[in-house]
Amino acid sequence: MVKRKELHDKKVSEKTIEKGLLIVHTGTGKGKSTAAFGMAMRAIAHGQNVGIVQFIKGPWHSGERDVLNKFPDQVQIHAVGEGFTWETQDRERDIEVTRQGWETAKKLIADPSVRLVILDELNIALRYDYLPLEEVLEILNARPDDCHVVVTGRNAKPELIEAADLATEMTLLKHPFRAGVKAQAGIEY
Amino acid sequence: MVKRKELHDKKVSEKTIEKGLLIVHTGTGKGKSTAAFGMAMRAIAHGQNVGIVQFIKGPWHSGERDVLNKFPDQVQIHAVGEGFTWETQDRERDIEVTRQGWETAKKLIADPSVRLVILDELNIALRYDYLPLEEVLEILNARPDDCHVVVTGRNAKPELIEAADLATEMTLLKHPFRAGVKAQAGIEY
Repeated sequence: MVKRKELHDKKVSEKTIEKGLLIVHTGTGKGKSTAAFGMAMRAIAHGQNVGIVQFIKGPWHSGERDVLNKFPDQVQIHAVGEGFTWETQDRERDIEVTRQGWETAKKLIADPSVRLVILDELNIALRYDYLPLEEVLEILNARPDDCHVVVTGRNAKPELIEAADLATEMTLLKHPFRAGVKAQAGIEY
Repeated sequence: MVKRKELHDKKVSEKTIEKGLLIVHTGTGKGKSTAAFGMAMRAIAHGQNVGIVQFIKGPWHSGERDVLNKFPDQVQIHAVGEGFTWETQDRERDIEVTRQGWETAKKLIADPSVRLVILDELNIALRYDYLPLEEVLEILNARPDDCHVVVTGRNAKPELIEAADLATEMTLLKHPFRAGVKAQAGIEY
């Protein structure tokens, strides 16, 4: 075990580039948004400012928001469309509110005071072609050196994974709904 | 989209069993401990008490601890062996401190005031046979109905996944260390 740890430390110490990372959480499993929320809390603990755009209502529930709202000086949360849940079946309106969210995301990425930008469920917006992939990639690739961006959502575009520094796929191995268990506070929301 | 949402709501409303879930985060990718940390924060926001046993020093860094320590009335964190990092090459001592951690875990699971128990990196302890799998499974399977248990760590035992209600595998698709980027505050720790 010692050897492996030493090798790891050596590997880490040799890495000298500091840059803003593009991180993607994708896959059909749980934990994509919760891990991003955990990263937000960790950044807050380091005294950093965090910007969050939620491109779908849902994955970030009251529990997360309640905690994040305890740090109003460090966290901005922007929900795309008030109560927007992709249920309107009005594609034009959906595209319009998604665009508004994306414009907010661009401002957060460009803001030198914001160190971590979380674009929650952006992958869904890209999947439904509510935003042009080329434009999104261009902005993400041109992010400032001191701005980390986390993109979540299933079905991440291959081009986005290609552009990412760190990409993780969360795969469902088992889900309690299959076993007849209802959603519970603190676990599902 | 409407139909799918309605089906989902129907599916959820039909699920009437409320039980403590056994949740496993495994795989070689990132996010296993961070998602568990996010769940802890969410439980705290719901006013629930959380117990955490860290079976390895490392995945839970100062950032997480700083945040959790802001809620001393709701969170207990127990690290197995002070500064224990699996580097002692003293198998007997390792087994001894792992056992102490497991005894703490059992108390947390049995404590009716604790709603969420996180056994961080327990999978590693099981992998190295520092704890008997049968005993661990027995306790986890006998958890109270109102206690959720989250187990993290790569190489989860198949028997543990079998026992779990929800199991997610985090798979590394890309890692920044490969691209020569050093670990950074708020992202790696």
